[in-house]
Amino acid sequence: MSGSVETIGDLGEGATLARIFPLLPESSRTILGPGDDCAVIDVPGNRVPLTTDLMIEGPDFIIGLSTGYDIGWKACATNLADVASMGATPTALVVGLAAPATTAVTFVEDIARGFRDAAAVLAPGCGVVGGDLSHGPVVMLAVTATGEFDGVEPVTRAGAQIGHTLAVSGQLGAAKRGLDLLFERALVDGVPDPAAVAELWASHPVDIAAQLRPEPPIASGRAAALAGASAMMDVSDGLVLDARRIATASGVAIDIDLAAVGSPEALTGGEDHAMLACFPPRATLPAGYRVIGRVTPGEGVLVDGVPFDHRGGWDPFADYAGDNQ
Amino acid sequence: MSGSVETIGDLGEGATLARIFPLLPESSRTILGPGDDCAVIDVPGNRVPLTTDLMIEGPDFIIGLSTGYDIGWKACATNLADVASMGATPTALVVGLAAPATTAVTFVEDIARGFRDAAAVLAPGCGVVGGDLSHGPVVMLAVTATGEFDGVEPVTRAGAQIGHTLAVSGQLGAAKRGLDLLFERALVDGVPDPAAVAELWASHPVDIAAQLRPEPPIASGRAAALAGASAMMDVSDGLVLDARRIATASGVAIDIDLAAVGSPEALTGGEDHAMLACFPPRATLPAGYRVIGRVTPGEGVLVDGVPFDHRGGWDPFADYAGDNQ
Repeated sequence: MSGSVETIGDLGEGATLARIFPLLPESSRTILGPGDDCAVIDVPGNRVPLTTDLMIEGPDFIIGLSTGYDIGWKACATNLADVASMGATPTALVVGLAAPATTAVTFVEDIARGFRDAAAVLAPGCGVVGGDLSHGPVVMLAVTATGEFDGVEPVTRAGAQIGHTLAVSGQLGAAKRGLDLLFERALVDGVPDPAAVAELWASHPVDIAAQLRPEPPIASGRAAALAGASAMMDVSDGLVLDARRIATASGVAIDIDLAAVGSPEALTGGEDHAMLACFPPRATLPAGYRVIGRVTPGEGVLVDGVPFDHRGGWDPFADYAGDNQ
Repeated sequence: MSGSVETIGDLGEGATLARIFPLLPESSRTILGPGDDCAVIDVPGNRVPLTTDLMIEGPDFIIGLSTGYDIGWKACATNLADVASMGATPTALVVGLAAPATTAVTFVEDIARGFRDAAAVLAPGCGVVGGDLSHGPVVMLAVTATGEFDGVEPVTRAGAQIGHTLAVSGQLGAAKRGLDLLFERALVDGVPDPAAVAELWASHPVDIAAQLRPEPPIASGRAAALAGASAMMDVSDGLVLDARRIATASGVAIDIDLAAVGSPEALTGGEDHAMLACFPPRATLPAGYRVIGRVTPGEGVLVDGVPFDHRGGWDPFADYAGDNQ
């Protein structure tokens, strides 16, 4: 792939970083930004959320279906959602990127632009304060995010109580529909067809955007915390699987209304990063939330009162068949 | 590799994590540990350091030269050193691990034990508060570390002033000697020879430990900050290269005494993670520090007064020839 294309191997680490830094979003909480051993960020309130996620070429994205911009956007958005689902406002990210030396510099710059724009749209003021760039056999992103609670208590998965309302803000099932469309129509013998991706963007913009460039309702996280949410998480692995996590952590059952959810794929499709929250009966739901069920005695997840025992979710080892098993 | 060996592909993500969690070090600052969207940690002082590093099979370690335990230890130690070199005390880590599905569970458990023991020895009270486990074509660790400043100002690379003393705490050159020994004697046609590694551990314990299981002087970071250090970093890429970073950031030159450093490989060998700090002339050096040079007018790094223009350090793209270039 070398030759006419300028690669990160040609440029080396320092020069590549110099190209990336101006593209990255800035954090308003930065005391010290990239270039030292650590970033330093301001933390009002004496405690911080901390979350980390890997996004790896193969199981998590396919270059050609996703652009570098999409990959950066999604890596940023999913980590912002994890912070938001604690009730916190995202403030800062650190990003590790590994890629083959033959990777085009423009591809890496596009990843940085994806971070910049996702942060600007989804969590203005949040930015990349540091990172690491290394050599790897495939493109791998490791993102760590933090934020500030600013007067709210962290909302965990463990606080749901019998009689509470289950509500969701954001899409359910769209990201899975987008993935299915991409796999069915834009992968030919495993090879991505960029023209087919472009056609899908035109014909199914909502579902394709939900999969490739998700816009989790970040502000809905803090809004739920302020409204008194008793438990919350973002739906990353599928509604049923994630609701079961709340049920298990809280020692309750959760009953979901299928009609309120809309479609069967909304039960099991992951990656929408909707905010899934439980509220006390008399709480006023914040804008954006709709009721989709309730917290009941028992354990596990029911749909319309019937136990739902399909696993319904994503396991990176059970569900990815990309290597030599 | 499947069959009699239990693999992380056999076990799946959840069961593998259940095996790992009990092995990981605990943080005394944990408000909420693994199992939710974010960990939450206590932060006295309203600001935190944040650093992230990738360690990738191939450029950063070779399985067979390093055990899983070594890999975990080193990933922990190097991130602790980054926090310490700001003057902070490490408190918490989040760890992303990617590995092929065929990876033995015991290997992953050994990585966790390496984290546990490195944290216990190097930074008691610091622990792993969260992470992510995913599927990758090689073993990759993404570690993010934070800490607390507890009354000291962050010590950056930018504060060195003419007339200040350059001092170091910890080893210089040992990790490079260890790497050379391993590559010369324990790699046969690129294949690691565990018996030869065992022999090197017996014959050259200091150098092999410095490379595979480094013990950076974590407490020397805070000690330097308390003693008034004007600039500090840990020597990860080589003394000259890292001293040049201080010189550039501070707008000064740094003159190193070769006799004080000891050996030429101490000038360029990386990965020792010694604390390299500048102190005002009348500061009392903390225990463990020795003077190796001084801050002078000009720019760049001199050795015994002569400009040292070799690059002298490690670039993951320029220096790693493991892929298809």
